[in-house]
Amino acid sequence: MPFGMVRPSPCCTVHPNSGWLPMPTPVNGFAQVLVSGTGGGPKYGNILIMPTTADSVATSCPDLRKSEEMQLGYYAAAMQQSGVHVEVTAARRASFYRLSYPANARKRQLLIDAGFFLGENSEPGAREAQEFVGSQVRVISDHEVEGYSRIRGGWNNGSAYTVYFYATTDQPFSQSMTWKSGKITDAQSQYDSGEKTGAILCFDGNEQKPVRLKVGISFVSEMKARENCLNDIPSWSFEQVRANLVNTWEHLLHKIEIDPATPEAQKRMFYTALYHTMLMPTDRTGDNPLWRSSEPYYDDFYALWDTYRTSMPLITLIDTERTASLVRSLIDIYRHDGYMPDARSGNCNGRTQGGSNAEIVIADAFVKGIDSGIDYETALRAMLKDATVPPGGNEEAEGRGGLVEYNQLGYIPHGIPRAGNRTVEYSYCDYAIAQVAKGLGYEELYQKYLRQSANWKNLWRGDYTDNGVTGFIMPRSKSGEWLDSIGFGKETMALADHPILKQYRFPYTPTTIEGPWYYPWWNCFFYEGTSWEYSLSIPHDFDGLITLCGGSRAFEARLDKFFDGGYYNPANEPSFITPLLYHAIGKPWRSSDRILEIIGKYYNDSPTGLPGNDDSGAMSAWLAFNMIGIYPNAGQDYYFIVTPTVKRTVLHPAPGVTFTISADNLSDKNRYIASMSLNGKPYPYSAIRHSDIAAGGTLVLKMTDKPGNKMINMLPQ
Amino acid sequence: MPFGMVRPSPCCTVHPNSGWLPMPTPVNGFAQVLVSGTGGGPKYGNILIMPTTADSVATSCPDLRKSEEMQLGYYAAAMQQSGVHVEVTAARRASFYRLSYPANARKRQLLIDAGFFLGENSEPGAREAQEFVGSQVRVISDHEVEGYSRIRGGWNNGSAYTVYFYATTDQPFSQSMTWKSGKITDAQSQYDSGEKTGAILCFDGNEQKPVRLKVGISFVSEMKARENCLNDIPSWSFEQVRANLVNTWEHLLHKIEIDPATPEAQKRMFYTALYHTMLMPTDRTGDNPLWRSSEPYYDDFYALWDTYRTSMPLITLIDTERTASLVRSLIDIYRHDGYMPDARSGNCNGRTQGGSNAEIVIADAFVKGIDSGIDYETALRAMLKDATVPPGGNEEAEGRGGLVEYNQLGYIPHGIPRAGNRTVEYSYCDYAIAQVAKGLGYEELYQKYLRQSANWKNLWRGDYTDNGVTGFIMPRSKSGEWLDSIGFGKETMALADHPILKQYRFPYTPTTIEGPWYYPWWNCFFYEGTSWEYSLSIPHDFDGLITLCGGSRAFEARLDKFFDGGYYNPANEPSFITPLLYHAIGKPWRSSDRILEIIGKYYNDSPTGLPGNDDSGAMSAWLAFNMIGIYPNAGQDYYFIVTPTVKRTVLHPAPGVTFTISADNLSDKNRYIASMSLNGKPYPYSAIRHSDIAAGGTLVLKMTDKPGNKMINMLPQ
Repeated sequence: MPFGMVRPSPCCTVHPNSGWLPMPTPVNGFAQVLVSGTGGGPKYGNILIMPTTADSVATSCPDLRKSEEMQLGYYAAAMQQSGVHVEVTAARRASFYRLSYPANARKRQLLIDAGFFLGENSEPGAREAQEFVGSQVRVISDHEVEGYSRIRGGWNNGSAYTVYFYATTDQPFSQSMTWKSGKITDAQSQYDSGEKTGAILCFDGNEQKPVRLKVGISFVSEMKARENCLNDIPSWSFEQVRANLVNTWEHLLHKIEIDPATPEAQKRMFYTALYHTMLMPTDRTGDNPLWRSSEPYYDDFYALWDTYRTSMPLITLIDTERTASLVRSLIDIYRHDGYMPDARSGNCNGRTQGGSNAEIVIADAFVKGIDSGIDYETALRAMLKDATVPPGGNEEAEGRGGLVEYNQLGYIPHGIPRAGNRTVEYSYCDYAIAQVAKGLGYEELYQKYLRQSANWKNLWRGDYTDNGVTGFIMPRSKSGEWLDSIGFGKETMALADHPILKQYRFPYTPTTIEGPWYYPWWNCFFYEGTSWEYSLSIPHDFDGLITLCGGSRAFEARLDKFFDGGYYNPANEPSFITPLLYHAIGKPWRSSDRILEIIGKYYNDSPTGLPGNDDSGAMSAWLAFNMIGIYPNAGQDYYFIVTPTVKRTVLHPAPGVTFTISADNLSDKNRYIASMSLNGKPYPYSAIRHSDIAAGGTLVLKMTDKPGNKMINMLPQ
Repeated sequence: MPFGMVRPSPCCTVHPNSGWLPMPTPVNGFAQVLVSGTGGGPKYGNILIMPTTADSVATSCPDLRKSEEMQLGYYAAAMQQSGVHVEVTAARRASFYRLSYPANARKRQLLIDAGFFLGENSEPGAREAQEFVGSQVRVISDHEVEGYSRIRGGWNNGSAYTVYFYATTDQPFSQSMTWKSGKITDAQSQYDSGEKTGAILCFDGNEQKPVRLKVGISFVSEMKARENCLNDIPSWSFEQVRANLVNTWEHLLHKIEIDPATPEAQKRMFYTALYHTMLMPTDRTGDNPLWRSSEPYYDDFYALWDTYRTSMPLITLIDTERTASLVRSLIDIYRHDGYMPDARSGNCNGRTQGGSNAEIVIADAFVKGIDSGIDYETALRAMLKDATVPPGGNEEAEGRGGLVEYNQLGYIPHGIPRAGNRTVEYSYCDYAIAQVAKGLGYEELYQKYLRQSANWKNLWRGDYTDNGVTGFIMPRSKSGEWLDSIGFGKETMALADHPILKQYRFPYTPTTIEGPWYYPWWNCFFYEGTSWEYSLSIPHDFDGLITLCGGSRAFEARLDKFFDGGYYNPANEPSFITPLLYHAIGKPWRSSDRILEIIGKYYNDSPTGLPGNDDSGAMSAWLAFNMIGIYPNAGQDYYFIVTPTVKRTVLHPAPGVTFTISADNLSDKNRYIASMSLNGKPYPYSAIRHSDIAAGGTLVLKMTDKPGNKMINMLPQ
């Protein structure tokens, strides 16, 4: 379900990030709570169910798949050893399974494993590993089981979260057993003694009807899980549950209607992308164990660093109420937890990658006029907290690490992890604060943060040349010297004090992405990127960037070298906006060329149709925007206009409002925009304001086979 | 029970800190989880039970007490309106009630209120207020109810904690009902929808036997609460449960045997004090919802700031295993939560008062040779984290607020809350770190932290005179200037920016304890004390203090003025050690004079026999130590020797070890120590090493009516 609390999936061996792996990896069972489209250490994988037909009882019965099938709201697998055909669909807070045991099965069993989770590691406290805290199960009738799984750690190094469940079947158990730490007994319950527990349910061997199973989930209690289960899935009809789900999606997906004549492969790419964009974060309104509030509650911002650029703006484009809910939930987390998250999962803030990017999400909503109950005054206080109060020992969890130095020096010096991208991103976040401060009438704050938004320039080493390009963001010491080589920073004291390692430094150049083996990757100058990438990643100050790069001509040459020289990384967010930068020098047709090339090369409609993992839909949303010919610059109120891949798109930004993008004569050959009209009037720009789309209307693109030949301004000056 | 998870008590109206208030305040009912001997905003007050005999049903039935009775492990109250005689005793994790309804009662009802808690406030997010998060109840048989209460906030502004309960009676319910948000229904359960819930249990009106009720508690789950309940209280015998409790206490209280001829009032004072010392913190081993560990788990360090000086050392004196457990749990909290607590309650660190005093607790255990599985290497890392990693936005929760400035300037400048006592206490904590570093062989660390332990001198304004005394710890600006008046600090920005208030400054003198009404008391220069008090509160550097005060003679005069001039506050910890400071100038008889005077004036065996609240037993432990003639200096391995109030004390510092303190000829007149012998040999000092006591032996004090007349060293030089 869109933003649903359950995301059921097979959990496969070995080391999946969120459960599913391609065949033939064995399936441990089907978990209810998982993330979607993420990377790094896993999170969740809770409340595993697994049908078996084994003669003996066991607490774990991994099985292979003979085949599997995936559709919207439907996953099915034919299990090899047990012969069971498992089908699953879902409501918002409950999974629904139809388990068809083979007719000749001597036993029809079902395991409910409350101790299972992803990412176990034998080393205590291992980074990004999930750690078991406790679990319990209780058979409460001949067709009902409840219990929970309590886990800590995982990708965001979070504190303990508890997934409560209520499971019920349409057929009575002919027998039920439970286990604790692998020991199976006839006891009908297992209390939490810090050990793994589960239940084994047996069904009458002669019954041939499939077993239907509902598993409701809550983060509050077993009884709330029951309430969620029976509320969200009142019936026993698998088809009805699935139809509800499909209808919900259809309603959302229809908010962007692309030309019915679009080739199937492109349709699949587009609507899959739109679907991926609306799986995460997770709407847990009503299931927050931490505080009571009238505000919405979302978890699994995983991470805003990934999603603020594209998936959040895509949600805003088609569902402003959802955006308002998301923003309100960020503010409510600040109210109760002290900081807005940059990432959050399992009811716990963490980990920050670079910026405090909730600022950009809020500014984006603000400049696009999203209102719907957002308390922007409190939002501004939350943003200012990020920008003024160091998170201290919690700087991997929230706020801005290195803030003291950033505010003192105007940049983050070497010695603090991720000094490069933190400086770049804090500048961008400061720009976001400035926008909101200005809009709310705080002129002094606006001026202050606008000044700070230029801080990225303090790491600009203007005379540094690499492969013919001059000017890069490079490491700098606290005392202001540029560093050509770097050693350990202060957060890696243990290694920095190591008698042998401490003497080593390694050269840092604009192509360095990782340090040597002994250098923790998490602490490098840039996070998941090179200086070639980050030095062009200044979405809030194109003019400043072009000037420092030596003007338009040098900038264009640099962009060309960036793409043609292999510096561009399509698989991660820092370079998302770079192909659009030709717009900033008046040559939007060159942006379109780059984007069409990137889509053609890295995106398709196969299971591996994205470059890298989806990052909670960020990659998908990049594709979806570019396919319809507009692309956002988060925190600002416009979209770049590029050549779409679909001829005609009808957007429904609000009920009753229609905005059409129509590319006349679009073809592989006619790939350039000769001219445009907006609502019948000539539109001689290369970007369009959000308000023009929100108001409804028609943007007609007249296509030609000739690239542009005169500079085009992005927007009216 | 010692360090028990339940501390049942009536919860009285209005605004009790931990439940009980003197008659005639009305009783809401009897809660299971409470703190003991604390001040400030309340915490807990969970799972309220209340018997009633009203004709109608209601969700709340406050009643007055006709009488009440308190004994070790026993509380009883005769309720006025209902006529019920309520008796309660307890095991470690379960309360046991005997409810004797009047013979003529038409109805015999019992309310179990899962929504009740102390410290509710209508203002959302009010400081120190507890806030409701959720609750649930479920009648699971005709004699069992389970559920939970989830609350956040309270004194330490903690995140949400959940108290699960399992309640069972020896008589079946003839009828049971539940309520949600005040609405009573026949439903047998109420799931958690963020509303207050409870159960009404009715018993057969003709039955004349009292209803026995067990209420088990867990912080993990209802089923664990059941396990705790039935494990800790297998029988239905009230007398047996009570006898178990009394035996457990007797075993502990016998570790210090005072002269049987001691007057009753003094016996009551002493053993009540010993009892108070061993109620808190709470042993929650096996009931930690946050992580799984083989280490012990304690909560309700409330606060170490209060207890490190006296109650922790008193526990160490008689129960080194308990001290080892407490220290191990502090280290395990660091391992899993990132910082050791200075205070902790409801499974959440906070609030820090001044120092990061876990350092002193650890150093005290270390120098006293407590081993028993304590990982001192990890302990040192935990201490160094406090001393090097700023807690940032969490500086009220853990670590050292103002650390950046402290480490940069060697003191905390004005503008940071509690700059005065934080500087003084961090110096002391640094001394503690130095001791452990030295003992573990880290010479460089030892030297570094020993140097830092002199940081208190950086706030010593040597030329400042008040009432004839010169030299005080006074506010200082970041640039080094002494401040005679102060305004708002940076943490009170909202007020600091107030157009009227921002112009006001108020004079700060050595007698200032609070700012004017518009100044948040929490942010003053010293926490709960004046400069007169804190300027003498340097337990780790008597020599340095005496020197800065102008030498022994000036120091003695200053002490005299301190006590005789009304600057001494017996009701709070900062001055706990001050009466002992005459020892440091070789005049221990003068310390004894002061202490006997203080005991006589402020302590007695009545319900109001302590000066102020007990601070988790800190006040009581101060009394207990001084009554037996020794007093610790936390973090160092000796005790001051003073005139005891009891003639003979037999200590059992370990199984089979006996240390006797005997004051020959002690009387009101013979109140001075003429000479001493240790194990038969003359002992010409005024303090004794912990190792001498731990080894067993006899210290004989020869008493006289004449004060000393020559300087006595505290310990062999």
